[in-house]
Amino acid sequence: MSNTLGNIFRITSFGESHGAGVGVIIDGCPAGVTLDESFIQYELDRRKPGQSRITTQRREADSFEFFSGVFEGKSTGAPITVLIRNSDQKSKDYDHIRDTYRPSHADFTYLEKYGVRDYRGGGRSSARITAGWVAAGAIAKLILRNLGIQCSAYVSQVGELKLEKPYPELDLSKTENNDVRCPDEEKAKEMYDYINLIRKERDTIGGVINGVITGVPVGLGEPLFNKLHAALGQAMLSINAVKGFEYGSGFSGVEMRGSEHNDIFEVEHNHIKTTTNHSGGIQGGISNGQDIFFSVAFKPVATIMKDQSSVDRAGNEVTVKGKGRHDPCVVPRAVPIVEAMSAIVMTDFSLLAQSNKLQGLKNVKDFLIPVS
Amino acid sequence: MSNTLGNIFRITSFGESHGAGVGVIIDGCPAGVTLDESFIQYELDRRKPGQSRITTQRREADSFEFFSGVFEGKSTGAPITVLIRNSDQKSKDYDHIRDTYRPSHADFTYLEKYGVRDYRGGGRSSARITAGWVAAGAIAKLILRNLGIQCSAYVSQVGELKLEKPYPELDLSKTENNDVRCPDEEKAKEMYDYINLIRKERDTIGGVINGVITGVPVGLGEPLFNKLHAALGQAMLSINAVKGFEYGSGFSGVEMRGSEHNDIFEVEHNHIKTTTNHSGGIQGGISNGQDIFFSVAFKPVATIMKDQSSVDRAGNEVTVKGKGRHDPCVVPRAVPIVEAMSAIVMTDFSLLAQSNKLQGLKNVKDFLIPVS
Amino acid sequence: MSNTLGNIFRITSFGESHGAGVGVIIDGCPAGVTLDESFIQYELDRRKPGQSRITTQRREADSFEFFSGVFEGKSTGAPITVLIRNSDQKSKDYDHIRDTYRPSHADFTYLEKYGVRDYRGGGRSSARITAGWVAAGAIAKLILRNLGIQCSAYVSQVGELKLEKPYPELDLSKTENNDVRCPDEEKAKEMYDYINLIRKERDTIGGVINGVITGVPVGLGEPLFNKLHAALGQAMLSINAVKGFEYGSGFSGVEMRGSEHNDIFEVEHNHIKTTTNHSGGIQGGISNGQDIFFSVAFKPVATIMKDQSSVDRAGNEVTVKGKGRHDPCVVPRAVPIVEAMSAIVMTDFSLLAQSNKLQGLKNVKDFLIPVS
Amino acid sequence: MSNTLGNIFRITSFGESHGAGVGVIIDGCPAGVTLDESFIQYELDRRKPGQSRITTQRREADSFEFFSGVFEGKSTGAPITVLIRNSDQKSKDYDHIRDTYRPSHADFTYLEKYGVRDYRGGGRSSARITAGWVAAGAIAKLILRNLGIQCSAYVSQVGELKLEKPYPELDLSKTENNDVRCPDEEKAKEMYDYINLIRKERDTIGGVINGVITGVPVGLGEPLFNKLHAALGQAMLSINAVKGFEYGSGFSGVEMRGSEHNDIFEVEHNHIKTTTNHSGGIQGGISNGQDIFFSVAFKPVATIMKDQSSVDRAGNEVTVKGKGRHDPCVVPRAVPIVEAMSAIVMTDFSLLAQSNKLQGLKNVKDFLIPVS
Repeated sequence: MSNTLGNIFRITSFGESHGAGVGVIIDGCPAGVTLDESFIQYELDRRKPGQSRITTQRREADSFEFFSGVFEGKSTGAPITVLIRNSDQKSKDYDHIRDTYRPSHADFTYLEKYGVRDYRGGGRSSARITAGWVAAGAIAKLILRNLGIQCSAYVSQVGELKLEKPYPELDLSKTENNDVRCPDEEKAKEMYDYINLIRKERDTIGGVINGVITGVPVGLGEPLFNKLHAALGQAMLSINAVKGFEYGSGFSGVEMRGSEHNDIFEVEHNHIKTTTNHSGGIQGGISNGQDIFFSVAFKPVATIMKDQSSVDRAGNEVTVKGKGRHDPCVVPRAVPIVEAMSAIVMTDFSLLAQSNKLQGLKNVKDFLIPVS
Repeated sequence: MSNTLGNIFRITSFGESHGAGVGVIIDGCPAGVTLDESFIQYELDRRKPGQSRITTQRREADSFEFFSGVFEGKSTGAPITVLIRNSDQKSKDYDHIRDTYRPSHADFTYLEKYGVRDYRGGGRSSARITAGWVAAGAIAKLILRNLGIQCSAYVSQVGELKLEKPYPELDLSKTENNDVRCPDEEKAKEMYDYINLIRKERDTIGGVINGVITGVPVGLGEPLFNKLHAALGQAMLSINAVKGFEYGSGFSGVEMRGSEHNDIFEVEHNHIKTTTNHSGGIQGGISNGQDIFFSVAFKPVATIMKDQSSVDRAGNEVTVKGKGRHDPCVVPRAVPIVEAMSAIVMTDFSLLAQSNKLQGLKNVKDFLIPVS
Repeated sequence: MSNTLGNIFRITSFGESHGAGVGVIIDGCPAGVTLDESFIQYELDRRKPGQSRITTQRREADSFEFFSGVFEGKSTGAPITVLIRNSDQKSKDYDHIRDTYRPSHADFTYLEKYGVRDYRGGGRSSARITAGWVAAGAIAKLILRNLGIQCSAYVSQVGELKLEKPYPELDLSKTENNDVRCPDEEKAKEMYDYINLIRKERDTIGGVINGVITGVPVGLGEPLFNKLHAALGQAMLSINAVKGFEYGSGFSGVEMRGSEHNDIFEVEHNHIKTTTNHSGGIQGGISNGQDIFFSVAFKPVATIMKDQSSVDRAGNEVTVKGKGRHDPCVVPRAVPIVEAMSAIVMTDFSLLAQSNKLQGLKNVKDFLIPVS
Repeated sequence: MSNTLGNIFRITSFGESHGAGVGVIIDGCPAGVTLDESFIQYELDRRKPGQSRITTQRREADSFEFFSGVFEGKSTGAPITVLIRNSDQKSKDYDHIRDTYRPSHADFTYLEKYGVRDYRGGGRSSARITAGWVAAGAIAKLILRNLGIQCSAYVSQVGELKLEKPYPELDLSKTENNDVRCPDEEKAKEMYDYINLIRKERDTIGGVINGVITGVPVGLGEPLFNKLHAALGQAMLSINAVKGFEYGSGFSGVEMRGSEHNDIFEVEHNHIKTTTNHSGGIQGGISNGQDIFFSVAFKPVATIMKDQSSVDRAGNEVTVKGKGRHDPCVVPRAVPIVEAMSAIVMTDFSLLAQSNKLQGLKNVKDFLIPVS
């Protein structure tokens, strides 16, 4: 229940940071999808550690194995299992925190909840788990490609450094051109230098990632408790370190009047669209065909290279040493995760949308199958 | 699937704005809960229309009927059905929008998705539906009362008017003292006057509601895809007009460094707590025993008293007349809805937490029942 | 969780035998289905008490109200709520069993599980609840009619009296011609007399209902844990008094050899079919296009008109008096229930089947909606 | 959706007969359970092929790897992944059926449903998949052991050879003493010889397995659509080759009168029990504390060593050659599968039962955690 996400296209996450590995099962993937392994690896590489100076120095190939569900390069309708084995575990690094609660980590809550804890590198609560999600998201993207839906994301803020331009003024194809994953070259450089400075100060800093979904058909989203934006929000809030989610006008829309905020309908080239998009492409929980856009807030990474006071399991005051490997700012590596999660949601809702129309059934074959 | 929320304590919403009525089924309510009808009615009254000059003038008693699941004043473990009949429907008011898409309403998306639409007063997409949620939330509050958990909410922003004080500096018992539901009397008066001004200008304005949950035990929340904050976020994003959700430090935490943001553990009176609470009471998706707090952004209501241009179903340009009854600002009446949704989530996760411990089973009765 | 059945087309049951009434919510009904009220009432009438001498003498009109989800005679995609109010409750009849456990009823288990019990007429465990299921099943049948799928059922056994002919040798259109609902007129008369005899002896007797589903397309059913026959089995085992389910060759197939039991494929009129149908229309959990058939075993009704010894809540020996109104044999009235449950399952799996094909998505509209 | 079973203790099945392997994820396993690996292997060995002359000659060690969720020999509350790699695949054996529909196999339905099929050895529809279920069932048994609940099963029929004695007259500890897994030594010998004869005739035969669950507390089972027997039925009907399920008096109860069938309550040693157990330990869908017993019908294995006529994908008549490795009768190896599935259901319902009581919450810790 707690490790499965989705309605029709469902992913089940498993694995730990310093165990055998991490992975994911995708159940409900339509049959016949060509699973382009190099694309999946490309997406994993975008997330993997050690890719630049401003990310953690842990080295992982993050290469994957299809354990099930794939035959002759295609999905079969059976659950697809993706395994990603850990290789650069340094479990010894964590012996000192076996009984210590690191500030703002999940050590305390996991141990209190479960009474037992895999303390090595965060165990189950490690962001390493998201490698599996990125693999599942890559498969979702392959499906969405057939539908003309594209999920992209980029860094829009690091600490106080904000990219003020809205996404329509940006060239999102430039996002991958720099290590920060900010499509504005100049701002990216500032952000890079800032993260590097923070790193040298042995500290960490938060950031914001913006997500943009284009090519969305009208009608995705299931009111009332499966609204498209609620599902996107839930998916984003599942990512480690996320503290907030907004879509369309978001928190800033609060200050607008209805007469400004309302998106006026008009007809263009014989199609109905809106002149503005404060709705963020979703009205009443259902996509309206305009672009979907949203923002996701990430707190600063809890692991810092400074000593901090804390308590251990027995209630003794202790000092948590600043050591281990970690990211000074999580957002550059979280861009592919945000994309993956939005692709998973969009695929799920695309498949779900097919199930609530009667028309589709007209195509169901007769009881005697024609010989083709 | 789309109208049910929750894992164990599950609510199923039904009804329309201008049909027979609205309602809710609560499945999974523990047996033996005394269902205080006057408390449930009190909560419904807090949400009902027509309660002050700054809310819609529709008049509804919002009185409810228990159709099932209650026997001699107690829950029986069977599904509880709550019916709230509509009385002041003025369906005629909506004839003019039968084929017209009101800007930033769900008219267009519902009609495109379903091909048929109950156009009267928003039909299924009306905020009137939340009356059922408030009834379910009242029952959840009755359960949580036994556990010492309290869910409260208040208005913290209307348009640009912000209540800057954080919740620990406020006396939340004063929230109900004014029509705005802001616990700071002075700020409440400003907000009231502002909303009234907006109303007179035939316009609407957005706002923010803050939620606070106290008395939370450690250990509620199910990683990875059923994190407590993700469930709260999903519930809040299900409420009409909500555009954003953040918890703990939220979007402002982005600008903090790890060394500032981390919540240091300490021992007080023999118990472990944190000195600060940027985590908002949740770490790794699991409650850590500190207060949970969050903010919810509401856009300005889409119905305004001004004419707007739009298109109809056939693609003709039309003018949508500014008429009907509506709220100039939704947040005063949304406070009980935010409380209700948080109470539903907290009850669900409290019951869920019982199911993942083996110890509890020690109490299961032997196969031969002792005669008491 | 416990009162909801289905994946896409989901029914939530509620109500009690002697409370306000019973009902059902159907969530996931496609929009635009014309809801023929007279057909729904016809199906309810087939199940309702007091329809002949061999059924219980309780009198209920079992007329229904659409509380939500229907607009201008059509489904809207919103949850459909059906209410059926109780009218002929004689709660007084049950005062004598308030603290007494009637043999083979659910009095003991409900009270032990929940600690509180609506003891009037079985409360939640009464077969009266199935009225809501029949209403939902009628809506399912209206959907299936469009797909050419037909769900029928008939009585094949009462006590030791068996109808030996398999369904292909019967004229199922004759099922409604007699009070027993057995399509063989002669056997029906024998069964009628036998039930009447049992009734006069103040006793009850069990029976078997056969279900037949025709016009089934190939491909319905979701392996591995949502096999079509497993879903049918679960639905049938949810009906009161059911003790067993088998499909195709069932328990008698056990005695066959593989060489006899295997259904040989052949081509007929350019279509692939099987020469025999021991598989009962389902192979590997998926429909193969042949007719689906199954049997459902019903125990004798627990309420008898004879005194029985038992114990009360305090552990005292007591005598349960033979009184109240009940059916001497449940199968005649259970025929529409079996049909309803199979129609609900078939509708659910038809809609579900649409969601696991990628092809369907080709039809999703472009992001700009054409003006029709 | 289709490969996951359970509410709280949920298993997700994956893998194929001739791919990398098979496996299972167990989500919702309580933390702190000692996972006795030798016991899990013992259960796998009971199911594995090649264990006697009357089973298939495929050789598989069926040794397993914990990929996740286990730390220092204990469950951590994280999803437990069990991998069982295939070793003795002879995929070449299946080249001849690439485009051929074997009679009464799932070749035709899978290919029609999915348009693509892993044809090697049944692929996803192979009974080899159940190895994962047995591993999950072994873990469930380890949990149930703490609760005093025991799930056992035995062969009660092979072809026409029936073990007439009911389970209370049998010594179930003798089930493992022979290759047939029938606790009656004499009958077991007859069955063995019969299966051997069938094998020599290059044919197959069906059988029945009886399940018995003892030590069951009162109150497990969730009405109305999650009745304990319906969940057991669904689980059993998920096993390959199963054609029927009955519990308690089952199909034979049909012929009884209410006055015979009713289980009379009595007090014994200060506890309430029933004098007979036609109810099979479940009343109204809830366990009543008596033993639960049920029967499961298995058809003869579809693979036979004889030539059969069939058609291929193109509609040509073809002959399916009698080759490959298979069991002449599936029931001896299915005994541990029936036990596993019943243990999974019982564990799930034990955990679920904890979630619908409010009392349990009294134990939830205060918001400040005491230092132990």
